[in-house]
Amino acid sequence: MERTLAVGVIGAGSMGARHARNLHQYVAGAQIAGLYDPDSGRAREVAASCGEATVFGDPLALIADSSIDAVLIASPDATHAELVHACLQHGKPVLCEKPLAVTAEGALKIVQAEQEIGRRLVGVGLMRRFDPQHLAVERALASGAVGRGLLFKGVHRNAKVPQHLPGEVVITNSAVHDIDSARWLLGQEVTQVFVSAVRTRDTLSADTRDMLLLQLQLTGGCLATIEVTVAADYGYEVSAEIVGVSGTVTTGLPMDAVIRSGRKTFTDVPADWLERFQEAYIDELAAWTHSVRSGQAFSGASAWDGYQALVVTDACILALKSAAAVAVPTPERPALYDRAVSPEVPSL
Amino acid sequence: MERTLAVGVIGAGSMGARHARNLHQYVAGAQIAGLYDPDSGRAREVAASCGEATVFGDPLALIADSSIDAVLIASPDATHAELVHACLQHGKPVLCEKPLAVTAEGALKIVQAEQEIGRRLVGVGLMRRFDPQHLAVERALASGAVGRGLLFKGVHRNAKVPQHLPGEVVITNSAVHDIDSARWLLGQEVTQVFVSAVRTRDTLSADTRDMLLLQLQLTGGCLATIEVTVAADYGYEVSAEIVGVSGTVTTGLPMDAVIRSGRKTFTDVPADWLERFQEAYIDELAAWTHSVRSGQAFSGASAWDGYQALVVTDACILALKSAAAVAVPTPERPALYDRAVSPEVPSL
Amino acid sequence: MERTLAVGVIGAGSMGARHARNLHQYVAGAQIAGLYDPDSGRAREVAASCGEATVFGDPLALIADSSIDAVLIASPDATHAELVHACLQHGKPVLCEKPLAVTAEGALKIVQAEQEIGRRLVGVGLMRRFDPQHLAVERALASGAVGRGLLFKGVHRNAKVPQHLPGEVVITNSAVHDIDSARWLLGQEVTQVFVSAVRTRDTLSADTRDMLLLQLQLTGGCLATIEVTVAADYGYEVSAEIVGVSGTVTTGLPMDAVIRSGRKTFTDVPADWLERFQEAYIDELAAWTHSVRSGQAFSGASAWDGYQALVVTDACILALKSAAAVAVPTPERPALYDRAVSPEVPSL
Amino acid sequence: MERTLAVGVIGAGSMGARHARNLHQYVAGAQIAGLYDPDSGRAREVAASCGEATVFGDPLALIADSSIDAVLIASPDATHAELVHACLQHGKPVLCEKPLAVTAEGALKIVQAEQEIGRRLVGVGLMRRFDPQHLAVERALASGAVGRGLLFKGVHRNAKVPQHLPGEVVITNSAVHDIDSARWLLGQEVTQVFVSAVRTRDTLSADTRDMLLLQLQLTGGCLATIEVTVAADYGYEVSAEIVGVSGTVTTGLPMDAVIRSGRKTFTDVPADWLERFQEAYIDELAAWTHSVRSGQAFSGASAWDGYQALVVTDACILALKSAAAVAVPTPERPALYDRAVSPEVPSL
Repeated sequence: MERTLAVGVIGAGSMGARHARNLHQYVAGAQIAGLYDPDSGRAREVAASCGEATVFGDPLALIADSSIDAVLIASPDATHAELVHACLQHGKPVLCEKPLAVTAEGALKIVQAEQEIGRRLVGVGLMRRFDPQHLAVERALASGAVGRGLLFKGVHRNAKVPQHLPGEVVITNSAVHDIDSARWLLGQEVTQVFVSAVRTRDTLSADTRDMLLLQLQLTGGCLATIEVTVAADYGYEVSAEIVGVSGTVTTGLPMDAVIRSGRKTFTDVPADWLERFQEAYIDELAAWTHSVRSGQAFSGASAWDGYQALVVTDACILALKSAAAVAVPTPERPALYDRAVSPEVPSL
Repeated sequence: MERTLAVGVIGAGSMGARHARNLHQYVAGAQIAGLYDPDSGRAREVAASCGEATVFGDPLALIADSSIDAVLIASPDATHAELVHACLQHGKPVLCEKPLAVTAEGALKIVQAEQEIGRRLVGVGLMRRFDPQHLAVERALASGAVGRGLLFKGVHRNAKVPQHLPGEVVITNSAVHDIDSARWLLGQEVTQVFVSAVRTRDTLSADTRDMLLLQLQLTGGCLATIEVTVAADYGYEVSAEIVGVSGTVTTGLPMDAVIRSGRKTFTDVPADWLERFQEAYIDELAAWTHSVRSGQAFSGASAWDGYQALVVTDACILALKSAAAVAVPTPERPALYDRAVSPEVPSL
Repeated sequence: MERTLAVGVIGAGSMGARHARNLHQYVAGAQIAGLYDPDSGRAREVAASCGEATVFGDPLALIADSSIDAVLIASPDATHAELVHACLQHGKPVLCEKPLAVTAEGALKIVQAEQEIGRRLVGVGLMRRFDPQHLAVERALASGAVGRGLLFKGVHRNAKVPQHLPGEVVITNSAVHDIDSARWLLGQEVTQVFVSAVRTRDTLSADTRDMLLLQLQLTGGCLATIEVTVAADYGYEVSAEIVGVSGTVTTGLPMDAVIRSGRKTFTDVPADWLERFQEAYIDELAAWTHSVRSGQAFSGASAWDGYQALVVTDACILALKSAAAVAVPTPERPALYDRAVSPEVPSL
Repeated sequence: MERTLAVGVIGAGSMGARHARNLHQYVAGAQIAGLYDPDSGRAREVAASCGEATVFGDPLALIADSSIDAVLIASPDATHAELVHACLQHGKPVLCEKPLAVTAEGALKIVQAEQEIGRRLVGVGLMRRFDPQHLAVERALASGAVGRGLLFKGVHRNAKVPQHLPGEVVITNSAVHDIDSARWLLGQEVTQVFVSAVRTRDTLSADTRDMLLLQLQLTGGCLATIEVTVAADYGYEVSAEIVGVSGTVTTGLPMDAVIRSGRKTFTDVPADWLERFQEAYIDELAAWTHSVRSGQAFSGASAWDGYQALVVTDACILALKSAAAVAVPTPERPALYDRAVSPEVPSL
């Protein structure tokens, strides 16, 4: 397919608007062709900044419309599963923000629907898989530079926490990214989780747990330890390290400039994930566009990854509440989700 | 201008082909519309990988063709000046690889022609101005984090040198980039140059000088010191530091991953400038595309910068040969080249 | 006390010999006055390299001898407790290599004996408390630069593992250092431990566990996560990070020189703890010497720290075997072990 | 010689007092036996903090006294040469703060006197030769890791400048250290110098030159570039890099702890040379003590190095004033100053 990919975006909130503008400004070979948001004014405003996108009054109409080649879902979490199913019904490739569904069961149904179709049409927006630093870790691992991966060590720090934030929300909103990184980089599934959590400040609500430690066991004799902090105060930081049999590889500290001033040598720390992962967001859209146009497999997270993310976060919530190690079921991964499988691009 | 920019590329050698493919694959809002190379087979091959570009039999015809909005020149150095003049005659924006001309006099004529037109149509391909690390240095300076810039320190190391390479070639081909960085980041003009040069290996030809030290004085009481090594062996590296009144800022060491293996903690060093500056090449094209489409000034090097580069490298060659400090004339910069001047985009 | 401290060393194996030579060569104000080792030839050899030390035929005679001001114990683990008790009976300051005893109960008896005497005569050789990097972390914490400490993150990697090494040995020999660092830097006691362990290579014995993850809860709402790897292959590395309420502080990567060579920018990794902690070993002896001569409290680990190390490692072994979280009793720390308490130096 | 070295210190100002206390507290095998300062109260105060040192009323009496084995000179610059000659007359080893004399001619006379004696009794306090980072660069060079050294790059930044500071003082007081580093690490002599200098602030006196760039040529086809800034404001920093035929090696950034706080990742910068080089000052004294006691050659700067430092700084001052490259005479180094020569320690 050499013609420009016509993308429909559902959801024009902060994330949807960012995706739409990123695709319009930075991704060659694609254009925003349609937009839907329950707030039609917001939809029109985003559309105006993205060329000549049609504003739809109904998300299912957007999905069904013949002018739309592929769909990007950035609507509220509760709507994801239904919209993804609609895309599958129309055979349209879809990139859905995480979570794929609000329950593991919901996500499993999408996995099953996709298998019935026999084509991988669904991508999930776990953008770290496109972060240059994370990709460099993956490449180093693949090169054999550190031997077989044994241990994943994740750090995930958000600067500011709302006054009330129970541990389960930290797990589903934040830790889910690190769990995906562990699965992706080690190439293994999680079999057991153990979670510790504390409240770091008296000023937070009594049931807030803003600092979590997750300790995971994975298939292949692998381990993982993940720190998730949502009140790090100093800034936003994510890192991932793999300890292998003969060495380790860690995401580099992004540092465009090193400054010496006031008795310090320093580099700036990003304010939030939008700043830290801007390049990953763009590269994710570019890779997805390329995958749909070329018929090659999307290199990002699949429906299976989206489903497993929910299975593991469910177990983590249970572990948090029970203060005990919790086993995670590891059903066999369907052959459709082997890396090598081509998604057999829909005829456009 | 909301429609896609139609770019004609002159020169399908390694640099021209790279520019064409980068623009096609990575730059939203532009397309390769025409290509010329004396080797028409090579031109056809590159055109085939960039969509539906027309292969022209003559570069002047490409420039004149109404289907071409803007021109990218990556042909042999000796042809640059004539082709740029042709673009100016047709009122077409042009991005020309360095050098702008083979003599300072030739570049001055382009500056004069542009002034007569009264619009900045010419950009020069000094890509470091789009390197994220160099831009971060510029931003830090602009923020006042280190005070007024006083001293530029440049490092420029190529891995491999040909067996024969006189010092003047090192100056015109390599040092020219660092001289441009010094002028750009300090915002001053060079007034004096002093050059030392050595041959680092007996295996190189007797007149080869593969390691150079340049020491510059600039207007505003500024200084610069530049190391240019073309036989660094270990890899390709470029860095720039500005020492300011109250601190310093240095380009970060690009490090996507940190590896521990075999009693070492290390990061990889790029092999060459194509690897090191790939992002800069793409961002240069994107900025140029944006500038032409939006009518905003191109943020890269101007014809004036291309002219000054030649004035200073001429002085460096003289300093190298005379082993003495050489004064550099600093004519006043025409008002057209003030940063604030808008290029008054041609009507498309 | 202005005269030189006369130190008796018990044990002339690799660690005892190193301590003796370090004290002789690098510590002002102290000298090796006596040495004992069951292998008297080895004792004589070490004595000969340390000035004019007397070789004793019996360790208790060395302790009792009036020519000996203070004792350094580096004999086999099983002998530590008895020798420390002998020092206490003679009122002599003693620096004992870890472990203080082979059981927590044994260590508790030393704590009790010391309380009866009412003076802190016992130091335990947990040398990280004198490592410049670890001390810099302590200083940064004390300065308030990162707020109250919440989370300790330890990394402890040995390069080579014997073919057979059960997890409990990794805990008592290696993890004990990291547990001490967590207690010391957070200033809290461990209340719960959870341990995961894997065997990283098929070539190791079936019950070997050479990679462990410890997850701890501490008083004060603090957490800790510790990686202990004894087959890291690439070299020896220890790091410690404290995440505080408003920032984090991490031990620096010791790097005396940065080398660029062969497409890599690198720093060397130490081979083992002797290389990594040589400065800490010397500074520990210097601080101990200074403490005994001046009557100021030894700033290293106390008998209480040695006792708690055993209490926590016992719990870790139980956690490893039970694959469940294990609570750790936290008896109140006797007032004698408050930081502020001066050891009331013995009259010399 | 197994007995303790009795050191006499001449000069109890800030540097002399520091040396005396460092030797007393941190150097095994030596003691402060005598002290002289024209301010006898100051001398008594320092003596009291260094054990039982005798306060002398005359520096030559101190040198001559049979209780003094070796002499450390930290008196005003103008007195150095005469005091060193006195030490030579009494055959006593002497460590003299730089400069060895106030003129190159004066230093040459010391070199000649030493040759007549035929023993290397004189060491010069250029302490960087004992800095762990600089020594690591020397070791890396010696290991062949980067090939033959070609280029020395020095950075030397002081935080605060007095309101009036002519360029020649910056050369003799500050640049002299970097010139010594270049000579030492490259193992070559300087043959030509070129100097640029600017005044960085209007608030400084008109003839102040607080930022200098030195560009040197050395024997063996080597080059050097040195930045000396005495108003760096942000803190004190020294670094040295050697570019070799196949790589480069640079002094590491001393970083005991890395802190994340307030949107920055940072390490602290020292305030001044006393903080930065405290370890080097101690190791210099320890090496000097060891050299005198063992009869092995002092590994620090010799009288020859002290003489060459003055020859090169003289040329730099001339280059600064003439704004032209200045040739430096390179007389043959006397055989006495070959590295391999043992100093034939005086019988003690």
